[in-house]
Amino acid sequence: MKQKLTIVKVGGNVINNAEALAHFLSDFAALEGDKILVHGGGKRATQLSESLGLKSTMIHGRRVTDKSTIEVVTMVYAGLLNKNIVATLQSKNCNAIGLSGADGNSIQAHKREVVDVDYGLVGDVDGINARNIATFIGGAMVPVFCAITHDGKGQLLNTNADTIASSIAVGMSNLYEVSLVYTFEKNGVLTSVDDDNSVITNINQEKYDELKIEGIIADGMLPKMENCFDALQKGVSEVIIGNPTVINNKSQLFTTLVL
Amino acid sequence: MKQKLTIVKVGGNVINNAEALAHFLSDFAALEGDKILVHGGGKRATQLSESLGLKSTMIHGRRVTDKSTIEVVTMVYAGLLNKNIVATLQSKNCNAIGLSGADGNSIQAHKREVVDVDYGLVGDVDGINARNIATFIGGAMVPVFCAITHDGKGQLLNTNADTIASSIAVGMSNLYEVSLVYTFEKNGVLTSVDDDNSVITNINQEKYDELKIEGIIADGMLPKMENCFDALQKGVSEVIIGNPTVINNKSQLFTTLVL
Repeated sequence: MKQKLTIVKVGGNVINNAEALAHFLSDFAALEGDKILVHGGGKRATQLSESLGLKSTMIHGRRVTDKSTIEVVTMVYAGLLNKNIVATLQSKNCNAIGLSGADGNSIQAHKREVVDVDYGLVGDVDGINARNIATFIGGAMVPVFCAITHDGKGQLLNTNADTIASSIAVGMSNLYEVSLVYTFEKNGVLTSVDDDNSVITNINQEKYDELKIEGIIADGMLPKMENCFDALQKGVSEVIIGNPTVINNKSQLFTTLVL
Repeated sequence: MKQKLTIVKVGGNVINNAEALAHFLSDFAALEGDKILVHGGGKRATQLSESLGLKSTMIHGRRVTDKSTIEVVTMVYAGLLNKNIVATLQSKNCNAIGLSGADGNSIQAHKREVVDVDYGLVGDVDGINARNIATFIGGAMVPVFCAITHDGKGQLLNTNADTIASSIAVGMSNLYEVSLVYTFEKNGVLTSVDDDNSVITNINQEKYDELKIEGIIADGMLPKMENCFDALQKGVSEVIIGNPTVINNKSQLFTTLVL
């Protein structure tokens, strides 16, 4: 039987709030067993860009990553945020190691192809180096990934943190029984978007198809859910969606996705 | 017999020059055997501080690291510089992994005690985690350290890159036969500071004592040389001082220090 591995994604809302982040990192440090953290960016990169007088170009609500922007996000995500998260986890007896996709060639990506829009230095993930990541875990370390990858030709790339989490989960599922935990501001997948208690506790592929037809899962949740079921189909054992307290079973309400 | 390990320190002069850095990284990637790179900071941190309107406080010619400054150096050293160096080495088939002292608890330090001057968030090294660093090397990875450490209580600390290089060299010398290579703008230790060909090729402890008495080694070179002989006394096999081309035997002129 494979050993269990928990991969937790924490988003910008928690990163932006020092107190919430401290609580979350205490919970993550206390989480038993082998684990990996993937963190999003938060608002510091935008603040730094503004302080430096850099203009953000948005297309379809998404930021274009030009040469100045990749410098800013590399500084903030891989430097400021990643190293402070690692130092905090170290202070809580969690032997964290901060990584970008370039480190140990952990995550290989390529610049997103230009179809209608050129998003610039944005990476789509090709694969992960599961052997290297397993080396860290085998050495009793806890990998902490920021959302920066590389193209193998010397170029760093800005990459979606949700995608990084699911790519690592899929890549590690040959070696481990992987639980992928997405934490966000809601308690889980909701039947009513305004009622945070209306959590759907279990969703399998059949139930998901029903919820889509009923229009309960719609809009922005659709691509997220498609990603989750894609990860399940590629070998991840379960996907959990809930608020940040879900990682230490402090939350009664959360959604579990299985095939 | 212990396996050989080469630890190379590269300074700000090379970091500041894109072309020189590219040449250096090609040479470093081609260097055979187990190796570690330690890089200094360069002028980008000062430029970023200025762009952000932060005031630098200098005491005795050294920068005081306040809360804003540790954020800036963490962004530039551990983020921008470290990740771009790693991505470049990856493009040259060198499986680099970028690290601060917090990552894997690789370098433990404490905030420098205030005697007459409070330099702020500056770290003095207590020790290294040789087992973890050996795990990376055993996993066919090449550690690339920036000059940021941590205090184990969640605080990142700005640390001298020369000291990081010698601390790693001493700490790894139980496990490896360590050569420590300091690259800088000169060809080596010179008898005449203005004549870059006046390199003293070999210095042992006896010769060093003579050179001190004769006043040939003086001023700023004294603490550097004391550090080198300290490293040799603590188990490092040899220290080499030369220009950046020394690492692939391209330079005929360099200084070798042994006990």
